[in-house]
Amino acid sequence: MPVPGGGQRGGSRRWPGVRAWLPVLRWLPRYSPAWLQLDAMAGLSVGLAAVPQALAYAEVAGLPPQYGLYSSFMGCFVYCFLGTAKDVTLGPTAIMSLLVSSYAFHEPAYAILLAFLSGCIQLAMGFLRLGFLLDFVSCPVIKGFTSAASVTISFNQIKNILGLQGIPRQFFLQVYEILRRIGETRAGDAVLGLACLAALAGLQVMKSHLPRVAHVEPLAARVSYLIVWTSTTARNALVVLFAGLVAYSFQMMGFQPLTLTSSIPQGLPAFRLPPFSVAAPNGTVPFWSMVEDMGVGLAVVPLMGLLETVAIAKAFASQNGYRIDPNQELLAMGFANVLGSFVSAYPITGSFGRTAVNAQSGVCTPAGGLITGALVLLSLAYLTSLFYYIPKAALAAVIISAVVPMFDAGIFRTLWRVKRLDLVPLCVTFLLCFWEVQYGIVAGVLVSGVLLLYSIARPPVKVSKGDVLLVQPGSSLHFPAMECLRDAVCSHALAASLPRSVILDCCHVSSIDYTVVVGLAELLQELRKHGLSLAFCSLQDPVLQVLLSADLEGFQHFLSREEAERCRGAEPGDGGAAPYTSTSESSLLPTGLIQ
Amino acid sequence: MPVPGGGQRGGSRRWPGVRAWLPVLRWLPRYSPAWLQLDAMAGLSVGLAAVPQALAYAEVAGLPPQYGLYSSFMGCFVYCFLGTAKDVTLGPTAIMSLLVSSYAFHEPAYAILLAFLSGCIQLAMGFLRLGFLLDFVSCPVIKGFTSAASVTISFNQIKNILGLQGIPRQFFLQVYEILRRIGETRAGDAVLGLACLAALAGLQVMKSHLPRVAHVEPLAARVSYLIVWTSTTARNALVVLFAGLVAYSFQMMGFQPLTLTSSIPQGLPAFRLPPFSVAAPNGTVPFWSMVEDMGVGLAVVPLMGLLETVAIAKAFASQNGYRIDPNQELLAMGFANVLGSFVSAYPITGSFGRTAVNAQSGVCTPAGGLITGALVLLSLAYLTSLFYYIPKAALAAVIISAVVPMFDAGIFRTLWRVKRLDLVPLCVTFLLCFWEVQYGIVAGVLVSGVLLLYSIARPPVKVSKGDVLLVQPGSSLHFPAMECLRDAVCSHALAASLPRSVILDCCHVSSIDYTVVVGLAELLQELRKHGLSLAFCSLQDPVLQVLLSADLEGFQHFLSREEAERCRGAEPGDGGAAPYTSTSESSLLPTGLIQ
Repeated sequence: MPVPGGGQRGGSRRWPGVRAWLPVLRWLPRYSPAWLQLDAMAGLSVGLAAVPQALAYAEVAGLPPQYGLYSSFMGCFVYCFLGTAKDVTLGPTAIMSLLVSSYAFHEPAYAILLAFLSGCIQLAMGFLRLGFLLDFVSCPVIKGFTSAASVTISFNQIKNILGLQGIPRQFFLQVYEILRRIGETRAGDAVLGLACLAALAGLQVMKSHLPRVAHVEPLAARVSYLIVWTSTTARNALVVLFAGLVAYSFQMMGFQPLTLTSSIPQGLPAFRLPPFSVAAPNGTVPFWSMVEDMGVGLAVVPLMGLLETVAIAKAFASQNGYRIDPNQELLAMGFANVLGSFVSAYPITGSFGRTAVNAQSGVCTPAGGLITGALVLLSLAYLTSLFYYIPKAALAAVIISAVVPMFDAGIFRTLWRVKRLDLVPLCVTFLLCFWEVQYGIVAGVLVSGVLLLYSIARPPVKVSKGDVLLVQPGSSLHFPAMECLRDAVCSHALAASLPRSVILDCCHVSSIDYTVVVGLAELLQELRKHGLSLAFCSLQDPVLQVLLSADLEGFQHFLSREEAERCRGAEPGDGGAAPYTSTSESSLLPTGLIQ
Repeated sequence: MPVPGGGQRGGSRRWPGVRAWLPVLRWLPRYSPAWLQLDAMAGLSVGLAAVPQALAYAEVAGLPPQYGLYSSFMGCFVYCFLGTAKDVTLGPTAIMSLLVSSYAFHEPAYAILLAFLSGCIQLAMGFLRLGFLLDFVSCPVIKGFTSAASVTISFNQIKNILGLQGIPRQFFLQVYEILRRIGETRAGDAVLGLACLAALAGLQVMKSHLPRVAHVEPLAARVSYLIVWTSTTARNALVVLFAGLVAYSFQMMGFQPLTLTSSIPQGLPAFRLPPFSVAAPNGTVPFWSMVEDMGVGLAVVPLMGLLETVAIAKAFASQNGYRIDPNQELLAMGFANVLGSFVSAYPITGSFGRTAVNAQSGVCTPAGGLITGALVLLSLAYLTSLFYYIPKAALAAVIISAVVPMFDAGIFRTLWRVKRLDLVPLCVTFLLCFWEVQYGIVAGVLVSGVLLLYSIARPPVKVSKGDVLLVQPGSSLHFPAMECLRDAVCSHALAASLPRSVILDCCHVSSIDYTVVVGLAELLQELRKHGLSLAFCSLQDPVLQVLLSADLEGFQHFLSREEAERCRGAEPGDGGAAPYTSTSESSLLPTGLIQ
């Protein structure tokens, strides 16, 4: 599909002003009919994928199926005005639904309030420009999380494929229960589920082998190409439609071997305030106690939403050559969640699968989202009675085929080859995510933070021994590194066999802090007590400024290592050889002891 | 005082083996009568300072005064065998007593259990070699904490100088209450307290102006010097003795204008297990609920103990030219606390004031601690009945004169001059310590950690524009920095007016992680999509290995910046000019687009 290249890019260069806050203004003035055609086509394709996914993800979230649809349209509309990536579509996703099922207790009121509060938090973060926090989520953590989520979510659907009821949510309990009750498998569900999986896999393979067709080919070839392309792109809708027909036929025959979706109330959701309290059997649960119940979910859900959206937006922005602004994405998602909560939506975020469909369909602007949203609204208004016949096993197959590609087995081998240390955060995240997704992510971020701090606290220090000891820290000196540097210098310089003066080559040091200054002062003092000197060389300008302002006793520095070595190697007692001595202290040094 | 120089040092070089775990073996074989004389003198001086301080600090901890003495001897004995610094003396300190008063609820059983558990935690940390954690406590945090503690502890004693009863513990409430009730001041206490303060300050000044006396002077001069030296060094004991005599005289006259220390039970503490449960009016409090009551204190007390001991040990080690091992210090302190809890001690740590006395007295080995410990035991066995007459105001004066020098007003000016950013952790720690000491320290460590991470996430990037764009990161690239580097490169290279190829000069980059590799791969891809190239130069060996093993598409590197510039500037289309291209991809680049 042809993409009007660069249309997006020229605008995204000019950030300031209203256009920064309302990205729609960047592309709307230049909107062309050619784009409309492509946007409409992409919007339709995404819509056909979105409706069955919405029903399925609501099941993952532990909510009645209509809530999936309620959550599927507001994000499309809002993102059209506020989003900075043309490909991204907001809506319910597998991972977010998993989180909602942990924090909303299968209770729509909680889920809607969670969407509202998450939206508010995301808005606040966007206005405070906190998008940079994402920089601290490293690649291995993201990979570990998505791979684990792929396994967890797939396994979560096995029970629907097998037609088992009353399986617990926790992964390990789930594995145990499913293995224990494998004999209770319902044949109808299992056969249909596996057939749907096979069909989806087949269509997926077809899609990836579909040749690109140039515009010059004959009409017949183009039409048949279009048919194959549409059926592979809308494969979710096709499979669900087929499964629904099978279920309907059985129903007509008065015999139902399949587990069906419960009936869904027809019509659009009411536009009203999110529920700030909820009626329970033993009295009303007030707002604060709902907030307390959701607890850490109020941090995890907005952050995961941001993480997912930005990760996806960055991936497609890089693929299609445009740039996104994480803070603007936060605002878009925040508004989508807040407004969504007024139409009974649960928290939404960027969907990887549907965004990929959108990009493959050649969407040109976020306007494609308007078509997707309209399609979801139409389904809600007119088609819900038909959804009754959709077998749960078919929806499970849709989810499994969507999340299985997220599992990246190659990452373990890649990290082993490229950087073994990064296997630690990867494995910690991956394994802990089976326990609870949020623990996995938090632990992964902490572990990669600890490894980061460790590498700062123990920088590489190159020591070369000659007449004088030449010490070169391999990176900037931050306070946790001082102790290690001091040990390195002292253990070599004060070696009992041959005490030596020291030249500290700071060419890689771009900044130092007060703790390092104090440490260097102590080092100077300690060496001087043993009759040795410490000279600095190749100081970068900001570092020199700091050291000069600290007014260290006996501080001397040289422009280059060669100069320092020449002056150190010169006749002893000739303190004047050091041209940049800040105090006259150096001439007091018992230079006769050098060497 | 002459110090047998170097005696300590030769031994401390040989770490491995049993000697590492039992540092006493390093100096005992070489012990000489000359050292014994100096050690005995120092031990006596410290003991004379220790006894009144012990009584006073017990008051700070909110415990009966004998607990101060119970805590004062075990540390001396244990440190003699396990310590690595000759000057350090373990015992009750002002700051540790302040912490104990927060976590032990003025209840000896809690204080003793806290000592036992803190000791166990310190032992575990020592065996796990966790001493390096101290590297993450930066200088501004330590300064902020000690300055705030100096103010808090001094102010805490004002009530005793004024003879006020029932003043709350919290700093701000204390200030308010003391100002409100200033009219209730007892004249006797106030006069005695101020007199003691003046005497202590005078003796302190005398001490600092005392000339060093060489051995050749006549005997009379040496004797008079010794008298002055002893009286200034044992000034705490002298002042307390004098105040006690005054109180005794008043008592004899049947009139007591002074608030006295309550009577102290005579005799040594029993050697028994620490209390693992405690009897309360409403039933026994079991072990776990005691642990729960102490809560975060079980982390704060051992860590603060380590921090104080190691900070002091490092200061004196640097001054006297020997080296300490933080992990061995942890073991020494852990054993001292565990064994101390068997003789009803509360948590102890290194004392700054008494360590200074020890060093000034010319101590040669930790054996001086044996004399100090024996003196404390003697006082407990025979002198407690006399302690009844010690006025509280005199003990308050002893504490105030010990902690006031810890306040470092100059640090604010120094940091303003040297490194203004470090004022942030300093001020955060200083101010929050007035609320609660532990909050101040934790917040200070977190703030300096955040500043550290920020400087890593936003490294200095030098960009010079020519025919090609030359980008040079100023320090190592860790994962949080990738996004910032990518933005810098893209915003300059893809500038609408003049797109340029990029040379990334990695001379300051000593290591990269997988996230950075992925980011660089995406950057390569993005630039290639715009017909631009990205070449690396001056790669350090480990970085080159990682990049080669990642097998980046289109990866090229040059030995030096000049070479890279020459090849970039060469005839377009001649991909062969790049000698270190890892794949043949570079020849596919539309090099005609460069420039």
